[in-house]
Amino acid sequence: MMPAGGAETRGQQIATLTRIARDLLLAPETEKVLEKAEKAIEGLPADAAERRMVQQTRHAIEHHRSVPASLIQERAALRTMAQSAWIEARSKSDFSIFAPHLQKTVELSRSYADCIGWTEHPYDAMVSIYEPGETASSLKALFSQLRRGLLPILDVARSRPQPRSDFLFRDYPEERQRAFGLDLAETLGYDFQRGRLDTTVHPFEVSFTRNDVRITTRYNRNHLPASIFGTAHETGHGLYEQGVDAAYTRTTLATDLVGLYAVGGTSFGAHESQSRLWENHIVRSRTFWRRHFPDLQRNFPEPLGDVSAEEFYRAVTRVEPGFIRVEADELTYDFHIMMRVEIECALMDGSLPVAELPGAWNAAVKRDLDLIVPNEAQGVLQDVHWSTGYIGSFPTYTIGNVMGAQVMEMLRRENSSLDAAIEAGEYAVLADELRTRIWRHGRRFMRDELLERETGRRLDIAPYLDYLESKYA
Amino acid sequence: MMPAGGAETRGQQIATLTRIARDLLLAPETEKVLEKAEKAIEGLPADAAERRMVQQTRHAIEHHRSVPASLIQERAALRTMAQSAWIEARSKSDFSIFAPHLQKTVELSRSYADCIGWTEHPYDAMVSIYEPGETASSLKALFSQLRRGLLPILDVARSRPQPRSDFLFRDYPEERQRAFGLDLAETLGYDFQRGRLDTTVHPFEVSFTRNDVRITTRYNRNHLPASIFGTAHETGHGLYEQGVDAAYTRTTLATDLVGLYAVGGTSFGAHESQSRLWENHIVRSRTFWRRHFPDLQRNFPEPLGDVSAEEFYRAVTRVEPGFIRVEADELTYDFHIMMRVEIECALMDGSLPVAELPGAWNAAVKRDLDLIVPNEAQGVLQDVHWSTGYIGSFPTYTIGNVMGAQVMEMLRRENSSLDAAIEAGEYAVLADELRTRIWRHGRRFMRDELLERETGRRLDIAPYLDYLESKYA
Repeated sequence: MMPAGGAETRGQQIATLTRIARDLLLAPETEKVLEKAEKAIEGLPADAAERRMVQQTRHAIEHHRSVPASLIQERAALRTMAQSAWIEARSKSDFSIFAPHLQKTVELSRSYADCIGWTEHPYDAMVSIYEPGETASSLKALFSQLRRGLLPILDVARSRPQPRSDFLFRDYPEERQRAFGLDLAETLGYDFQRGRLDTTVHPFEVSFTRNDVRITTRYNRNHLPASIFGTAHETGHGLYEQGVDAAYTRTTLATDLVGLYAVGGTSFGAHESQSRLWENHIVRSRTFWRRHFPDLQRNFPEPLGDVSAEEFYRAVTRVEPGFIRVEADELTYDFHIMMRVEIECALMDGSLPVAELPGAWNAAVKRDLDLIVPNEAQGVLQDVHWSTGYIGSFPTYTIGNVMGAQVMEMLRRENSSLDAAIEAGEYAVLADELRTRIWRHGRRFMRDELLERETGRRLDIAPYLDYLESKYA
Repeated sequence: MMPAGGAETRGQQIATLTRIARDLLLAPETEKVLEKAEKAIEGLPADAAERRMVQQTRHAIEHHRSVPASLIQERAALRTMAQSAWIEARSKSDFSIFAPHLQKTVELSRSYADCIGWTEHPYDAMVSIYEPGETASSLKALFSQLRRGLLPILDVARSRPQPRSDFLFRDYPEERQRAFGLDLAETLGYDFQRGRLDTTVHPFEVSFTRNDVRITTRYNRNHLPASIFGTAHETGHGLYEQGVDAAYTRTTLATDLVGLYAVGGTSFGAHESQSRLWENHIVRSRTFWRRHFPDLQRNFPEPLGDVSAEEFYRAVTRVEPGFIRVEADELTYDFHIMMRVEIECALMDGSLPVAELPGAWNAAVKRDLDLIVPNEAQGVLQDVHWSTGYIGSFPTYTIGNVMGAQVMEMLRRENSSLDAAIEAGEYAVLADELRTRIWRHGRRFMRDELLERETGRRLDIAPYLDYLESKYA
């Protein structure tokens, strides 16, 4: 909603607020209060909310004490430069324009990792910002299972003739897409009394408290799925935030004390699990379109007149390797992630020099997707992440896929009326389950702890592979 | 833009930020830096920007030191209660529901005034928050001149037959009004790269920096003037904020250090002078509608088909005393203000007990407007101000009227091509003058100092009375 001219000063305002938040966290008064609180929680159960608040505050203080303000400033300054270099590099499809900034990003990330501390691999420190508990080594193990599981499913899917998908690219007026999207979000349970759905170039979800959650989507007049599945995805994120226990509002259990911003989800991966669950397990399902395709057709009688619900479902689950991560189907998406994480690890430990990145990228795309990258804009320069100083966040997309399937499998197993409710379009049953088991806890439990409480297992890849196999093979 | 459910937590967030801002202002580190700055500015000219920054910070620190945090909390707590009581009281048209809260508001305002300090009248302390330099006594003198000047003009205006205004209440589709309003704001010079125009129940302007200014208006489908003149008014406020020197961004010269929020205008009255100038001197003028009525007619061919530019101008300058301040015409508006200020003074010095307020109100309306107040909702309960703990802001509306005319008179005198430019619809000439003389200075000069620099006189009522006389008598 901000006018374009406000971006620079808004950035300065956010930097000021973040610095003040950090200063308050590290102030002697906070230390005194915290020490008192540490005494007060003795005797409380290990998982008591109060105990967790205190422990998380202590952990955040240690984190921020370890990172000097000068490094934070250097990273912020770099970000501004790197982003405009990346924009130019991408528009000219010329990696060399971005390379020196990426080199600096890697160097500052290494310094940052050293400040935070790591034992096995510097990447471990970076991942801990987004997905506490994961490491280069745990991800390597996860990805090796995932790769082994995905390849045969992908083979089967690719051996079948492609369904038609021509109708997805017809003329879909934006206003109609918007009306359908608003209905969709509401149908899934998004509370518009405490949320909005707006339009942006890059879809996102952001929450200021559980009572003020904003989600956005984009509308492509000649490509219907972008807005539908984008809206479903962000609705999933929004539901998580709206579902956090009201008692945690404006406490550390709804705040990322390391990143210093309000968020109720317990990790990036846990957050992504909810968006992917609603996007893929619910909306990208045959059940959903059997029920709701007539609504969609009513909104778009012209372009969807000659299409059946089954044809629509098959078109939106079509599998086809491509160069672009954000356009990837469910079966190839994780390959995009795995190669990025592999590259990030190699950049962080120095085994891959920045200059050799384009070559490594293209080789990975050839190896995993059997495609020849046509240019750097559609290859190594496609994602914004590295230009913002983000190294270490990519794994959370795949973790979200895995966790979403694990939660869904558990719910289906434990609630025998869930499938019938979903078939009947009564999504409140699913939302209630997720609210009780996941959302309301906010950041009280770490991701694996939450999974163990609710599914009896830490992050487990089996349900995800089962889901993909039954859907795509 | 905020979803309705976010209001309460947003209020808490703002309270937190305000408290932190105050704490930072009163912190020993700030004192140290300020003392150093006070040495550094010695030798600078009296009106140097740096000197003013330092002096204003010192003044703000003294202000905030004088008001105990407990009193701020009491006022904030009262505000929440008083607002809901006022809403109920107004809907039931029953002053007695609101009276105990107003009693408390008066008491806390007296304590507040005592903290800030005053010599002649406790109201002086309250006015100093909004309009530094004005006092109960200076306002009394101003109002007595104003009343004496207004009465004969009002007599003449009321002796004439009323122009037709039936067409103002026809059917004006909101989307068309909005399109016209966006054009209008742009025509007057509002920069949409650094601003927005949105829709709210109560129009306002707010700026986060000069690069992010928001104005709003309301659309009444059966009353066209509300959106047109509302938009022109808020555009005037917005232009002031957008026109502050870029070098003052995020400095004390674009911050109200007493109220602790971003604002570039030097006082409430100075701000209102710019909104009233654009609303009344430019848009509510015969010159404007001679030029722009055809545009309006093109937007609304049906309801304005049988109307001439002159008829439209006469309708929107029709004079008719009424009960409601926000609906008042230019000639009677100030009477609404003067009676409120009179009442506020009497409440503050105790000469008017809260219980006698409705009687005093109705007597003033009879005396000034010769009207019998039909009920308390349309009388003493009509304004939100007192329910928010605001006492002392009403005078700034009339000060804005007076200052707007004074500035306009000076510009017309000093820039001989101004009127020709306005007639030609080239409002940039006026905007450039105002930017150079008023806007760019931000809060560097106090209102009267600014007026003296630019017009050679402190606040002076003569140009305002001249303007009203030539327009309405």
